[in-house]
Amino acid sequence: MNRLSLSQKEPKPVLVVGSVAFDNIITPYASGERILGGSAAYAALAASYYAPAKLVGVVGHDFDQKHVDRFQAHGIDTEGLQRDETGPTFFWKGQYHENFNRRDTLDIQLNVFETFRPKLPESYKDSSYLMLGNIAPGLQLHVLDTLSESKPFTVADTIDLWIDIQKEELLQVVSRVDLFVINDSESEQLTGEKNIILAGQKLLELGTKAAVIKKGEHGAYLFHPEGRFALPAYPVTELRDPTGAGDSFAGALLGCLAALDDTSFDTIRKAMVYGTATASMTVEDFSCDRLETAGTEAIQSRFDEILAMTQL
Amino acid sequence: MNRLSLSQKEPKPVLVVGSVAFDNIITPYASGERILGGSAAYAALAASYYAPAKLVGVVGHDFDQKHVDRFQAHGIDTEGLQRDETGPTFFWKGQYHENFNRRDTLDIQLNVFETFRPKLPESYKDSSYLMLGNIAPGLQLHVLDTLSESKPFTVADTIDLWIDIQKEELLQVVSRVDLFVINDSESEQLTGEKNIILAGQKLLELGTKAAVIKKGEHGAYLFHPEGRFALPAYPVTELRDPTGAGDSFAGALLGCLAALDDTSFDTIRKAMVYGTATASMTVEDFSCDRLETAGTEAIQSRFDEILAMTQL
Repeated sequence: MNRLSLSQKEPKPVLVVGSVAFDNIITPYASGERILGGSAAYAALAASYYAPAKLVGVVGHDFDQKHVDRFQAHGIDTEGLQRDETGPTFFWKGQYHENFNRRDTLDIQLNVFETFRPKLPESYKDSSYLMLGNIAPGLQLHVLDTLSESKPFTVADTIDLWIDIQKEELLQVVSRVDLFVINDSESEQLTGEKNIILAGQKLLELGTKAAVIKKGEHGAYLFHPEGRFALPAYPVTELRDPTGAGDSFAGALLGCLAALDDTSFDTIRKAMVYGTATASMTVEDFSCDRLETAGTEAIQSRFDEILAMTQL
Repeated sequence: MNRLSLSQKEPKPVLVVGSVAFDNIITPYASGERILGGSAAYAALAASYYAPAKLVGVVGHDFDQKHVDRFQAHGIDTEGLQRDETGPTFFWKGQYHENFNRRDTLDIQLNVFETFRPKLPESYKDSSYLMLGNIAPGLQLHVLDTLSESKPFTVADTIDLWIDIQKEELLQVVSRVDLFVINDSESEQLTGEKNIILAGQKLLELGTKAAVIKKGEHGAYLFHPEGRFALPAYPVTELRDPTGAGDSFAGALLGCLAALDDTSFDTIRKAMVYGTATASMTVEDFSCDRLETAGTEAIQSRFDEILAMTQL
């Protein structure tokens, strides 16, 4: 497994907790069936370009070893990937519409996720960087409780479903993390603020130490006690499937912080550029296919390209 | 009239041709009646913060001297502002909807604009910087012909109406200017490309030396033979009326080039930041009210703020 060398130091490991799924994806141009997906799959693969990743999630009896091999080929520790033989893997079916700016959930089957309780192997417990990928906020809180002694630097993501049905738990998550990542429509839903600046301020008031509001093809905004940072997205010309872009962004961002073992405002801003570069790979193909095969040189070259097109 | 001091040199004058209008504007929160508007009004006022502006346009018998005074208070040369006593001033009535991301034209009365033919005073003809604000492409071509000897560096803007009814003339304009400025939905309409990168490339193929695609609250993209530049918008929290934002952006951008008397890729990128800073003032109030009163310090401070939030 090749990693980007961001520092002379050995990168710190990143613990990634979230969903591992089979997705059916329909886009205006093509579709994919039973392809590897889930917040933890994307985030762990993205993080693995920067730091050793340790995966926590659950899969069912139908999850092929070949997918586990894909994680391991990226040096991802899968000791925490539980297999539950009593049911099939979490399944999501979604459809993107013209311009990819809206998606509908056509089917969702929680399957083994219904009774999932993240268990952290002992070797995971001293992690100092934690990614809480999109899963039920109640489970995210459980992980935070489990790690209450080591108090890792924590990035958390969510989706609109949890704002609808577990808002109270979600607000607890927001109040306990270091960087809360959310897309623009969800930030409006959660904070009641249409204006991105007011929404960002509200997120900080809700207790997260910093927040990133993702605007898809329009980039991302960081709200931090030391200032704001606005970054355009990498303008992809071959958009095939936006699924996992946000997870890849967050995973790579945290991986970059772990690689540099630094969580300052400056480093978070730089990590957002790596997150954007990495996510731009993900959307160029279905599932994790392009993310997996992109390689460090292509990611670094895209990072350089983003700097060239945004920095005076 | 105070100007931003961008250079030790005397700024070159900027010739601004376009519409001067009375607008009725309806937004979800307020409305304005018979307020000063038009592409040349916004662009000239914006440019005047950077360089001496010379205005070319037409007004009708109902145009109050007080509005002429507003231009002159900004040091704008109004010798080229023709008064046509045979009819009223150009009138536009538009309505913005929720989130300001869509607007409808409710009424449009060309009035004295119907027979307008831009006449350039002799003292205007050696201008080396020309802004062709949104007017009929046929009139824009007429101005380009008039100035075919001095060949000024030319920025041109347009709107969807002309793509619908004067596309051939508009394509001639595109092929003859140095920087063509257009918003994202119009660039799609003109080039047939949804993807902003492909649309930008197509604009260059159509002959403009460089192009800016404006994305409203999501910023602007420069396409230039030497590279691309992506700039987020200034995140305004008090958006009152987006009318004139694009004209202000383009006018300030060109004013900045004239002030520095430099049209290199680097300077155009810097000028986009000044354009963004200036346009962010315009949208904070109806008509040109905030643009007029903003002052150089507020614009410079917003420029600094944009750099701080976009540069690593």
